[in-house]
Amino acid sequence: MTVKPFLRALAGEPITPPPFWLMRQAGRYLPEYRETRARAGSFLDLCYNPELAVEVTLQPLRRYAMDAAILFSDILVIPDALGQSVAFREGEGPILPPIRSARDLDRLGTPGLLDRLAPVIETVRRLSTAIPSTTALIGFAGAPWTVATYMIEGGGSKDFGHAKRMMWGEPQLFARLMELVTAATGDYLIAQIDAGAEAIQIFDTWAGALPETEFRRWAIGPARHLADRIHAERPGVPVIGFPRGAGVLYRAYVEETGVDGVSLDTSVPLAWAAEVLQPLCTVQGNLDPMLLVAGGEALDTGIDRILATLGKGPFIFNLGHGIVPATPPGNVARLADRVKAWRG
Amino acid sequence: MTVKPFLRALAGEPITPPPFWLMRQAGRYLPEYRETRARAGSFLDLCYNPELAVEVTLQPLRRYAMDAAILFSDILVIPDALGQSVAFREGEGPILPPIRSARDLDRLGTPGLLDRLAPVIETVRRLSTAIPSTTALIGFAGAPWTVATYMIEGGGSKDFGHAKRMMWGEPQLFARLMELVTAATGDYLIAQIDAGAEAIQIFDTWAGALPETEFRRWAIGPARHLADRIHAERPGVPVIGFPRGAGVLYRAYVEETGVDGVSLDTSVPLAWAAEVLQPLCTVQGNLDPMLLVAGGEALDTGIDRILATLGKGPFIFNLGHGIVPATPPGNVARLADRVKAWRG
Repeated sequence: MTVKPFLRALAGEPITPPPFWLMRQAGRYLPEYRETRARAGSFLDLCYNPELAVEVTLQPLRRYAMDAAILFSDILVIPDALGQSVAFREGEGPILPPIRSARDLDRLGTPGLLDRLAPVIETVRRLSTAIPSTTALIGFAGAPWTVATYMIEGGGSKDFGHAKRMMWGEPQLFARLMELVTAATGDYLIAQIDAGAEAIQIFDTWAGALPETEFRRWAIGPARHLADRIHAERPGVPVIGFPRGAGVLYRAYVEETGVDGVSLDTSVPLAWAAEVLQPLCTVQGNLDPMLLVAGGEALDTGIDRILATLGKGPFIFNLGHGIVPATPPGNVARLADRVKAWRG
Repeated sequence: MTVKPFLRALAGEPITPPPFWLMRQAGRYLPEYRETRARAGSFLDLCYNPELAVEVTLQPLRRYAMDAAILFSDILVIPDALGQSVAFREGEGPILPPIRSARDLDRLGTPGLLDRLAPVIETVRRLSTAIPSTTALIGFAGAPWTVATYMIEGGGSKDFGHAKRMMWGEPQLFARLMELVTAATGDYLIAQIDAGAEAIQIFDTWAGALPETEFRRWAIGPARHLADRIHAERPGVPVIGFPRGAGVLYRAYVEETGVDGVSLDTSVPLAWAAEVLQPLCTVQGNLDPMLLVAGGEALDTGIDRILATLGKGPFIFNLGHGIVPATPPGNVARLADRVKAWRG
């Protein structure tokens, strides 16, 4: 019997009030996070330090009654563990030596992958016993396309010029890179589950940059592979997909990946999601993070609108994108109280 | 009788092969543009110099058989003409003194607007006689929401934090700013039409950042206002809307704005556009600009896929976003040849 509300919702049960958590709910908007962050060296040092990573994962749970805790880590631990060293410069985002050729790619590999990721897995293990008994533990990874953009661009990008040129101009090289990342991500997610993760979310932050044909191949394809593998090897563990910016293709993503839940970005219209997506799987989302910054009556109205339209079906309240550092913690409390007070 | 193929397509006629042009078809990918650009002072100086702006507008037409020419200008001439001085720093994008308060907004105003925009209108006037007789002249403006983001943020933004906080936190101030921009944009577009623009495109580059309720109010609302005004005051001049990133809401945008044509971003699935949007209006799009950079067989395949799905109905071939500086001019020729050779 699944008892945690978050897992019941992912199994397809409508729950009133709905479970909620916030994307990257641990972070710079919390003073206690900033304090812990200052004790770690680099950002990746924090991700690889089980004691501190557990601490920051738990911090928001001490303030707010979230129904799930998400492992504190970063999507770029996969390239880092594959041998492409990742650095985070404060205020600049990640920097990686870019993968542009077969020779660059040859330097990466999965041997030793899980050894390098052992501290992250240890964080999951500790969290599985440290979180409250009604709170579910979510493991996660970046989707292969999104992770590949950073690996090929060498960091963030506005237009994914290098990644797309490899995708179209050197399709075999690109496919080899995607297969490597997909295999590594699968191993990593299975290890998270074995350490105690009760659900998995796959973040495809840049899925919306892909035209339809490429979306089907490189966003739906790897997500289906990962969902299939988890469902086959670790039956009962639900998978949430987040193909951010997929627009109309959210429907194909849900139908063709077999995910148990889908996370909606802020632009997805609620009535459409209720009519088209919610009959297919549990939906999660999709408050604008900037509305959580703005607060006030506009925030209440925005919360109520989401609850009124999606709250009757299988639903998890969340943001439509990651929480931002400018978020007043009091607004998060206001959100938590309002969601928890909802009675349909 | 409308004879130019581009205008016939916008009137709802399927044309084989379809007319084509490229978003911001004049630009840094052309050596002759870079040469002309070097003769102007700042980027805005180029926009305000009719002789040079006419020259760069015509440059791509000398190389490729485009069916339309789009005025060379920038969406930020509106805030500039409203009194918010705009500067472009090379490689950094635009910088504006941000509008954050009623006092900031009070400094802006429409008196003298068209005087300040006179050089742009003069460019339209000269173009109307300088372009080939079968080429249509497109005037344009940024959509009020997109322009407002730059005005409030003081430049480009990743998350539109200031703009959204004003939208939600100071709704009256935001509404006043939007009304000012919308009114100025309407005057500006009417003046472009009176100077010879035969069609208008409204670029809402950041429409996809708006949740549904705000999209309806601040993307659909102003676009409907502008389309209504043009249709009422200058009947016969078609309006193309480009609500980039609208996803599922492309349908509502088309249904509720009354635009004659809609420009599709790269993420819009072709079969959905053919089934849902094309019966409502002419569609335009949506090749990925990076595929035009990549070239080769992948480019041919991408072009053919778009033509096969959308080419039978009222359609204008275009990119799904602006052309990028890295585009090889030879690939644009390859695109032009392939579109023009299509026979359905």
